[in-house]
Formats: sequence, structure tokens, C-alpha cells
Amino acid sequence: MKSCVIQVINPNINLAMTRMIGDAARRAAAPGTEIIAARPSQGVPSIEGHFDEAIAAIGVLEQIKQGKAYGVQGHIIACFGDPGLLAARETASAPVVGIAEAAMHMATLVATRFSIVTTLPRTLIIARHLLQRYGFEHHCAGLHAIDLPVLALEAHAEIAQQKVRECCIQSSRQDGTGAIVLGCGGMADLASALAQELGIPEIDGVSAAVKLIESLASLGITTSKRGDLDYPLAGMFNQLR
Amino acid sequence: MKSCVIQVINPNINLAMTRMIGDAARRAAAPGTEIIAARPSQGVPSIEGHFDEAIAAIGVLEQIKQGKAYGVQGHIIACFGDPGLLAARETASAPVVGIAEAAMHMATLVATRFSIVTTLPRTLIIARHLLQRYGFEHHCAGLHAIDLPVLALEAHAEIAQQKVRECCIQSSRQDGTGAIVLGCGGMADLASALAQELGIPEIDGVSAAVKLIESLASLGITTSKRGDLDYPLAGMFNQLR
Amino acid sequence: MKSCVIQVINPNINLAMTRMIGDAARRAAAPGTEIIAARPSQGVPSIEGHFDEAIAAIGVLEQIKQGKAYGVQGHIIACFGDPGLLAARETASAPVVGIAEAAMHMATLVATRFSIVTTLPRTLIIARHLLQRYGFEHHCAGLHAIDLPVLALEAHAEIAQQKVRECCIQSSRQDGTGAIVLGCGGMADLASALAQELGIPEIDGVSAAVKLIESLASLGITTSKRGDLDYPLAGMFNQLR
Amino acid sequence: MKSCVIQVINPNINLAMTRMIGDAARRAAAPGTEIIAARPSQGVPSIEGHFDEAIAAIGVLEQIKQGKAYGVQGHIIACFGDPGLLAARETASAPVVGIAEAAMHMATLVATRFSIVTTLPRTLIIARHLLQRYGFEHHCAGLHAIDLPVLALEAHAEIAQQKVRECCIQSSRQDGTGAIVLGCGGMADLASALAQELGIPEIDGVSAAVKLIESLASLGITTSKRGDLDYPLAGMFNQLR
Amino acid sequence: MKSCVIQVINPNINLAMTRMIGDAARRAAAPGTEIIAARPSQGVPSIEGHFDEAIAAIGVLEQIKQGKAYGVQGHIIACFGDPGLLAARETASAPVVGIAEAAMHMATLVATRFSIVTTLPRTLIIARHLLQRYGFEHHCAGLHAIDLPVLALEAHAEIAQQKVRECCIQSSRQDGTGAIVLGCGGMADLASALAQELGIPEIDGVSAAVKLIESLASLGITTSKRGDLDYPLAGMFNQLR
Amino acid sequence: MKSCVIQVINPNINLAMTRMIGDAARRAAAPGTEIIAARPSQGVPSIEGHFDEAIAAIGVLEQIKQGKAYGVQGHIIACFGDPGLLAARETASAPVVGIAEAAMHMATLVATRFSIVTTLPRTLIIARHLLQRYGFEHHCAGLHAIDLPVLALEAHAEIAQQKVRECCIQSSRQDGTGAIVLGCGGMADLASALAQELGIPEIDGVSAAVKLIESLASLGITTSKRGDLDYPLAGMFNQLR
Repeated sequence: MKSCVIQVINPNINLAMTRMIGDAARRAAAPGTEIIAARPSQGVPSIEGHFDEAIAAIGVLEQIKQGKAYGVQGHIIACFGDPGLLAARETASAPVVGIAEAAMHMATLVATRFSIVTTLPRTLIIARHLLQRYGFEHHCAGLHAIDLPVLALEAHAEIAQQKVRECCIQSSRQDGTGAIVLGCGGMADLASALAQELGIPEIDGVSAAVKLIESLASLGITTSKRGDLDYPLAGMFNQLR
Repeated sequence: MKSCVIQVINPNINLAMTRMIGDAARRAAAPGTEIIAARPSQGVPSIEGHFDEAIAAIGVLEQIKQGKAYGVQGHIIACFGDPGLLAARETASAPVVGIAEAAMHMATLVATRFSIVTTLPRTLIIARHLLQRYGFEHHCAGLHAIDLPVLALEAHAEIAQQKVRECCIQSSRQDGTGAIVLGCGGMADLASALAQELGIPEIDGVSAAVKLIESLASLGITTSKRGDLDYPLAGMFNQLR
Repeated sequence: MKSCVIQVINPNINLAMTRMIGDAARRAAAPGTEIIAARPSQGVPSIEGHFDEAIAAIGVLEQIKQGKAYGVQGHIIACFGDPGLLAARETASAPVVGIAEAAMHMATLVATRFSIVTTLPRTLIIARHLLQRYGFEHHCAGLHAIDLPVLALEAHAEIAQQKVRECCIQSSRQDGTGAIVLGCGGMADLASALAQELGIPEIDGVSAAVKLIESLASLGITTSKRGDLDYPLAGMFNQLR
Repeated sequence: MKSCVIQVINPNINLAMTRMIGDAARRAAAPGTEIIAARPSQGVPSIEGHFDEAIAAIGVLEQIKQGKAYGVQGHIIACFGDPGLLAARETASAPVVGIAEAAMHMATLVATRFSIVTTLPRTLIIARHLLQRYGFEHHCAGLHAIDLPVLALEAHAEIAQQKVRECCIQSSRQDGTGAIVLGCGGMADLASALAQELGIPEIDGVSAAVKLIESLASLGITTSKRGDLDYPLAGMFNQLR
Repeated sequence: MKSCVIQVINPNINLAMTRMIGDAARRAAAPGTEIIAARPSQGVPSIEGHFDEAIAAIGVLEQIKQGKAYGVQGHIIACFGDPGLLAARETASAPVVGIAEAAMHMATLVATRFSIVTTLPRTLIIARHLLQRYGFEHHCAGLHAIDLPVLALEAHAEIAQQKVRECCIQSSRQDGTGAIVLGCGGMADLASALAQELGIPEIDGVSAAVKLIESLASLGITTSKRGDLDYPLAGMFNQLR
Repeated sequence: MKSCVIQVINPNINLAMTRMIGDAARRAAAPGTEIIAARPSQGVPSIEGHFDEAIAAIGVLEQIKQGKAYGVQGHIIACFGDPGLLAARETASAPVVGIAEAAMHMATLVATRFSIVTTLPRTLIIARHLLQRYGFEHHCAGLHAIDLPVLALEAHAEIAQQKVRECCIQSSRQDGTGAIVLGCGGMADLASALAQELGIPEIDGVSAAVKLIESLASLGITTSKRGDLDYPLAGMFNQLR
């Protein structure tokens, strides 16, 4: 494989989470792949709703521009709502993959139906909308929230991880589900241990997205610039284009 | 009716279009309604894709905050993609209505199916996604683009209006449709003349949204702050909240 | 606003309910709006299923004809199943709005998902079919019945209202819903008190429909007479056309 | 097979069409089956829209009551819009089948997708709604109208039949369809000749419904009276219950 | 009715179940109908998943070929997953009906929604996929498994039948359902007793399929050989074609 | 990346096509990946419908068993209908990916909508069903057939390739599509040249599947053996399990 540079964008500005996501990406990356973990120069400390997503989308676009200038082979949007995904695809020429879509796509390859375990109940609507947009409504057996905010995954790691674990166990039983999608970039670390304990695939979107970008890059498939995802028309915000 | 102040936000920064949209809103407004036409302090000159929408969403949120401070009874997002709609609903306490949803809702009340006439073909995907999100896929008989950018509606008004007219006539015939939804805030002026010529309802989203906001305000119905649309959690971007 | 006369048709023959619905409509109406509350000359005392709806539809058509002769600016079908809606739209030239669709449309403007609270469990299938027809299946978080017939709302008002209240509270908790749609014209009185107690929008279809008709009338948008909703072809039942 | 009496209800009042439908039903009936062809005592001469359907539904209910008194084993609603179907099922205890649903169900058993050929374009919306209600949207490859009213099938039989034939041929080619559903009770006579000429199944709903009623009757399966389709609650219209 | 020979194919190789299915078919058959109960020469003893279905499909095709050589008027695939259905329709010229589709179609004619009671939880996904394929997702109120394998219906008949009974009672209450579809050919015997006890239609697919084949045969409707279901192209497996 | 052995199963018995598919897989494979191209010991020379798929599924299962014995890290089903996919997933412990799903998943990552270009019109129904099953109906802008059988891609390579090219060009224009999915394993060779000529991504399922299997293998994600895709229950066909 030719060497490949992937930019992993944490859409919030939290440094520790950016590092954690970068590390998770590196563990998933092929030998020839270099991971650049990035975060917006300004934005929200965590993403817990549509407002946060809108702010985060700008940070994502700013970072896409930087990654593009650097010449990366692909961009990852490392927040489970995939904020700014289609806008990023317009700006980028390399492929752009969100961690929610990455996890969902992967899950459908190894199970007939998956459950999603995410952070606050108020973000479930974002997952619902993504399932509809991506076409996976019939593949989702259940949507669950641990009722802790994103940053608790770091600040109160032990409690939060225990809640994720319990929620996964319960979802797996209730939903009759074959796989679990971890619905937050901050849960990337937990996937393999949980998979081992529960005996079913636990899909983390960060690592899934790394492999999808490597796949696209290796096949020479880039974002379609014909029609819907063509570069933005010239205007005032050239600094982000 | 108690007096009602409605903020009509043009998500792009074009002054002439902001005025035109404001005028259209005023023509639709009830006697007791005051219209404040606003545009972002910075942003894109027109919205022709997802990138432009992401930028525009920030401008919308900035304006929502100002409108909220002013104490308006409702906010309108006057771009056919309804950019930033759910984020705006999180920030606002008064109701927020997008002109695309307003036009689509109204159209389903007077026709079994409607056609959409919009600007550039690349924006059709935005309309498609909105139809899916709002639940109106089965109510849409056809999606059409005049293949001119938004600003042409102003810069080359005569040509653009002629194209809109032709596209409406053709859509009406081809699709066997009962109503036409005008898919751009910049087409607000054309609705009534076209309706008269074609003999079917032509729905302009700006005026439709004014009436929906007046309706909600009059009924005392405001954006639900329980759950999905609760105020954004505290964070760094308090200036927009 | 030019003066506007709206005919509110109670599809059943119950006089007290007709008055109650008329009063609810009047409370919602703009100053310039006159409300005419009507009921069929013959029909069913309440509507608790498809059979009752079929009978009621004839009464609705009879009343639409009278309202049309009177020159009203719009017609409301004030029963949650919207009986005879499309037939009424064929007969009418002014806009016709059902209270179920009115409430559902309004609810989607202020919440991502709504719950429905209605009367007997056997009428839930009617609500299900309407959700499918109108495109709001994804917007409905739950369907609930208080298990009392329509007329109990009047005959045993206290008990019935208590049941509605309890059902709203429970739905709001269970469904994680942002708004509640009251699924019966006879519940129109309860909306505002419940909204205040529960802290989420409670949408009553009667008042919602009044505002939608006022909106359409003010915009000069009338029922499309091209194609699907054209006037009925001439035949034997001219007395209803 | 025990002897079986089936009531075939022509929802319009046209005598010649009632006879024709009765004859088509008799040709399809098993030796032990007796066909009673009925029409409402009053109603519309033909059904060309939602208004006509609403009127016709009352006639259907009147006839269901008579058939029930007579003790028939099943009822057929012989108009392609299946007017009054669920109301009829509430009133009846024996099974009730509409000719649209009958034809659609049968078509899916012998072809992956079918096309519909019906009368006036304005009735296509009725077929669309039925496809959605019955779940056959994905099974329908095309909807076509010959642009002649129902009664033309009798008054101008030769021209109308030629139009049906041409429309079937064209649909079969255009849609890549495996079967054609004839969308009007008045086309019952044409099915077998067209099937032979075109070499694909042409499904007539009248004969399909006769076989479905015979099937249900023979299996002792009657309309579910638990829940949604329970008998109408007592009220003023007992004469129709 | 002209005499009619129907081949009922038990897709597994179990002799006792083949006989039981054959007997159930005979009880449903019209006087002039002859039932030939067949099973593959080799295959699986019972069908409890996709693997078993793939094996069973070959046995079904083998039997279809034999039935075709014999000159039967129709073929039934008597396993609730309808294994090999479309392949069988390509091979056959007579109609082919699966017992799952037969039961589902029939259920929608007598109830607005039905529940399914089947064997092992792992087969629920097969029923889910069939509901999607056939278009009956909205008609299904609940999917339930008794958690016993197919062969338990015979080997431990009493226990299994008791479990089916309990599951039907519970489903009927929980789902607010109007009918129950028995999700296994091995449950054919239980339908009428359960229907009587529960007071709602219990649909057995074997008898339903017999009546549908009789219906199609009587109407002269055979599998469409135009397009999608045309005979397989010539190749190496002529022995099965 | 640890070394990875992927079994690419051509579900038909054609040797030349097996080699071609194997070569395409090898070109896509990472340096550490070994490709084993396999074909069934017996089966159909090409797959042009449901019958052929049923036969091919058995060959796929036979090969899965062999690949499993060999200890491969993943299996690819290299026919656009993904025959036997869920059955193969039951049998396998390593991941199994079909080339249709692989291509469709990849296409949605780089374009909002894709078109499919396949061989014979009769196989379009298979693609339609897969789109529904996988959830990509809304992502498909058009389905097209070159009207030549699979083997023509080899026997009459030049003509066939020219037809594919023309069909891609036309689809790209007509459908307003952003990417094209090549709907046959035999088209694997054409993707990159066509992508270059047309300027939009042309997705070949064989190479896409190789990358997806490499991705899953690298992440240690294997087929879920909990519930729906658990190993087949013991029975007579142990030789294939």
C-alpha cells in the first residue's frame, strides 16, 4: 500500500479527547498510514445537540481546508453526529467519512441488526435522523443513551465506562441485537474489551472510519465532484473553501 | 390579535435580497404584525449547496440570538434549505419556521401532491433530504431546477423570472401536480402572478412562514424546550446561545 | 386582515360538542375572523370508528355545501380522523383543513417528535393511517388511548379530563416526546392548562386549524382545482356538490 | 365445498354495470357459489373521485346490511377505490374484500411488479393511496389512465376497450412490468382476452375478489371483530349497522 | 370447478411433518382438488435459519420440477420463510405460493394488523425480511417466538402447542392485534382451535396457500413469464429447470 | 497489518471469470493480503436470475466451508446479487461481504446518489430487492441494464465493454448521478478507465469488498454469532456447515 495520510478531525475543541481519538485512529491504522489528529481553533467543548453541531461544522470545514492544503488522502469527522459531512465533502477532494456512518456501515456487514449506545438522551434524535438519511432504520434494533454528557467519558471515566458497559449488556439482551454501535468518539477505547466480554461485535466509528478511508484511498476513489458535491461556488468565505 | 414581532432572517448577506424578503413578509403579515428583516453580519452572498448552508447556519444562530434579545414572537429562516433549523430551535424559545417546511406544509393542505421549482440542480439534493426529513416524499410529484444561481433572480431578474415561469408551466403539465412550491426565498415575488396565470396554487415559503409564525404566536405555542430541542448546554459559544 | 368567515364543522350531531368546538375556535380566531359552528342535519352522535366516519363524511359534505353557499373563506373538519377530507376538498373551492392534520403539522414545527392522546383504542388505527397518509410516521413517538368514548369527554367531563391528563403525563415520560397532540375535538378545552402543567406544547387541532385556514385565506391560497381535487363530475348527488 | 353466497356490491347505481359485474363474478365463481349482484338504492352513477367515493360508501354500507340480513358468506366492494372498505368490515361479520386490494394481492403472487391501468387521471391519486395503505408501493411499476370516465366503458365500449388495450400494451413495454391490474370494475370483461394477446397476466379485481371470498369462507375465516374492526358502537344510524 | 392438482412441498425432509402438512392442505382443499404432499429427496430435517433455507431452496426447485412434469396446477412452498420462492416462480409455469405470504395476504383481508407467532427467535429476522419484501411492515403489530425449534412441534407436541397457545394469547393482548399469523407449517393443525378459543382469526399459511392456488388456477392466472420471472436461461443445471 | 488471506468466491463455475475476479481482487489487495479465488465444484455457468442464484448459493456455502477449513480471514461473494449472503454468514465465523453491498456502501461515501449499470434487464429486480434490503433505495438514482448476459462480458468483451461504457455515460447524464456502481463481477476490469473518462467514481464491487474484508479483519471484527447469524443448527447437511 502506498503511504496514506489521514486527518482525523475532532469537531470539538477538547484536547484530551482529540488525543484519545487520534490514538484510537492510530491503533486502527495500517502500517503505511499516518494519522493527523486535529481540532478546530475555536468551537464547542463537546457536542450535545444541534446547536453544538452547527458550530462544530464550521470547525470541521476549517480543518478540512487545512488537511486539504497539507495533502491528506482522507478526512474523518470524529463525532457521532457526523456534523458538517456533506459540506465537508463539497470542500474536500479526498474522501470524507463520518464516524457514525462508518460504524453503521460496518455493523451491517457483520450483523442483521445493531443497537446504538450513546451519551445524552437529547442526542438520540440526531442518531435517528442519521439512520433515516443513511438508510439504516431497518437495521437498527434499538437506540439507548447512558444519560451522561460526552465529556463525562473523560472527566468521570470509570463511572461513564461502567454505564456504557451496563447499557451495552442491557441493549444486547432487550433488543435481540447482533452488534452494538458505540455512539460517541469518546467511547473508542471501550470497543474491544466490551466485544470480548459480551461476545458480539462492538463497533467503534473512529477505527471503522480509518479503515474506510484507507480503503477508498487505496482504490483511488475520491469524493464525486460532479453535481451534488461539487466544490462550493465562489463567494465570500473563500478562506474556508 | 395582540401585536406580534417576527424576525425574518435571510441566511445570506445579500442586502437587496434581504429587503425583498422583508417586503414579501410584510405583504403577508397581519395588520398587528411587525416584520424585522435581518441578515448575518458575515456569511455567504448566496446559498447554493451544503457548504454555504453550514456557513449560513452560523449567521442564522447569530441572528436568532439578536431576535431573542429583542423579544420577537417568532423567527423565520428565509432560505429554501432551512439551514440551521434545529440548531435555531434549540437556541430560541419562540417558534422558528423555515420557508421550505412552511411552503411544503401549506401545499399539502390544498393539493394532494406538489412540485418544487428551485434554482441550481445541485440544490435539488437539499430539497430531497428535506422532503425525507419532513415526511413529504409521497406528496412531491416532481423536483425541478431552472439552472440559474440564486442571485440571478436579482441580477438577471427578467431572464430568471421567465425561466421560473416556464419551469412552473412545464412541471405543472409533466407531473400532473396540483400545486407548485417555489424553492427559493428570492422567488417570493412571483407567486401570486404565477398562480393566476397557471390556475394552481403557487406557494411561496416566506409568506407561508409568516402566517405559520403568526399562528403559533397567537396560540401561545412556542418551541418545545423538553428533550430534543432544549437549550444548548453551557459551553464556549455562549455568545450565540 | 380582511374579515374572514370560517365554518367549523363538527362531523357528529352532538349539539353541546358543536358549541364547545365553536367556542374553542372563537378563542383561537383573529379579531377579524367570524366562526360559524355547524353540525350535520343527521348523522352519528359521536365518531368512534370507520363506520361512524363514513356516515359523518356525508354530513361534512352537506355542511361544506352550505358553507360554500354562505361564502365562507374556509372549512374545518373538527373530528380527529379528518373524515371526508379529500371529498370535501373536491366540493369546496375555499381551503378545507382537518383538525388531525392541523395539529400534526403544527406539532412538527415546535418539536422533533410528538405523541398522540386519543379516546378509544379502536380509533388508534385511524390515527395510524393518517400519520402514514400525511407523512408524519417518523414524527410520532407514541399513540395512546384513554379508553373512554368521545362523548365521555362531556358526559363525565371530570373523569375524562383526569384520564387525558394522566395519559399526557405518562406519554410525555415514556415516549421522550417533545409535544402532545390531543386526538379529539372534544379535548380542545384542555390544551392550554395541560401545556402549562406539563411544560410542553399541547396541540389542539381545532385552534390549529383555525389559524391554518386564516393563514391560507389571508394568502389567497385556495384548494387546487386542477387534477386530483377538481370539482366532482356532474351526477345524481348534485344536492351535495 | 359447502354452498356459499357472495354479495357483489357495485357501489354506483348503474344497472348495466351492476349486471356486467355480476356476470363477471358468476363466471369466476365456483360451482357451489351463488352470486348476488347489488347496487345502492341511491348514489352516484359512477365513481370518479373522492366525493363520489364518500357517497358510494354509504350505499355500500346499506348493501352490506342487506347482505348480512340475507346471510351471505362474504361481500365484495366492486369499485377500484374500495370505497367504504374498513367501515364495511366494521359492520359485517362475514369477510369483505375490495376489488382493488383483491387484484393487487393476486398480482403480487404471479409477478414481481405490476402496472395499473385505470380510467380518469384524477382517480390515480386514489390508486396511489391504496398502494400505500395496502403496502404495495414497491410492487407497482407504473400507474396509467386511459383518460375516459368509468361510464365510457359501457356507453362507448368499443373506443374505451381499444384505449384500455393500447394502454396495457404501452404500460407493459414502458414499465418492464410482469402483470397488469385492471383498475375499474367495468374492465372485468377484458382481462382474459388481453392476457392472451399480451402474454402476461391481466388481473381483474372482480373475479379475484370472488376467489378470495370463497377462500376465506371455505376456511371459516371471518372479519376480526376484536379491536379495530369491531361492530360500530350503538348510535343513531342503527338502520345501517 | 375443474379438477385441480396442487403440489404441497415441505422444504425439509421430515416425513411426519410432510404428512401433517399434506393433511392440513387436504382439509382446506375444495372437493375437486387433489393434494400431492412432497418433500425433497435430500435436505435439512428442519429449517431454522438462512443456511437451512438455502439448502431447502434446492429441494424446493427439485420438487417444482417434478410437480411440473406431473402437470400440477400449482405449487405451495410450505415453510414460513418461503425459501426459494422467486427461483421456483422462474422454474414453474403454474403459480407458486409460499405459506408465509399466503397467511400474510389473508390476514390483511380480515384485520387491520396481525401478529406473527413463530418458533425460534433466530427466525424472526426471516419474517422481518419477508414483511419488508411483501410490503406488510405496517400491517404487522408484533413478532413473537415460542423459543422452540420447528421439530419440537412434533417431538414434544403437547409442550410446544401449549407454548404456541400462550404466545398467541399474550400477543393478542400486548399488540392490540386483530389476527394472528401462525409462523410455521408445523402449526397448521392448531389454527382453528386457537381461533375459537381466542375469538380472533388465526391464519395458517398451508390452508391459505391452498385456497390461493385454487383461486389462481380457477381464474387461469399463471406465473408471469415476461421479464423478471421468465424461465431460467439454459445452463448446466438443466436437471432442475 | 498482519497478513490476511481472503477467499474470493465466484458463485458461478466459469473458470475465466474466476481468474479475472481473482486478478481484480489482487490488484485491490494490500501488500500483506493473499487472495484465493474459488469457484463452486458444480453450479451454473453464469447467474442471470433467481434460479441461478439459488443454485449458486449452494456453491457459495460449499466454498465458505472450504475457506473456513483453510483459515481465511474473510470471504467475498463475487456476484452482484450477493447470493447466499446471510446463509454464508451463518456458516462462517470470519466476515463475509457481497460485492453488491460492498459497492453500494462505498458509493454512498463519495456521492449522494449512485446509478447502477448491470447486465440483463431481468436481473434489475435483484438489484431492486438488494437496495431495499440494504437500505439504499433513496441513494439509487437509476437502474440500468446493458441487455447482454454476464458471459458476454467475456465472450464478446469488446462489444460488451462498449455497451457498459455507453450505458454509464447515459446514466450519468440522465440520472444526475454522482457515482456509478458496476453491477456485475465481470465488469471489475472496467472501473478505473471509465472513472477517468467520465470524471465520476465508478465503483467495482470486487475491489470494494476486498478493502471491506481487509478493514474488518484488521479491526478484529468478525460475523456476529449471537442470534440471527449464529451457526446453523445441527442437521443432515453437516458437510456444508
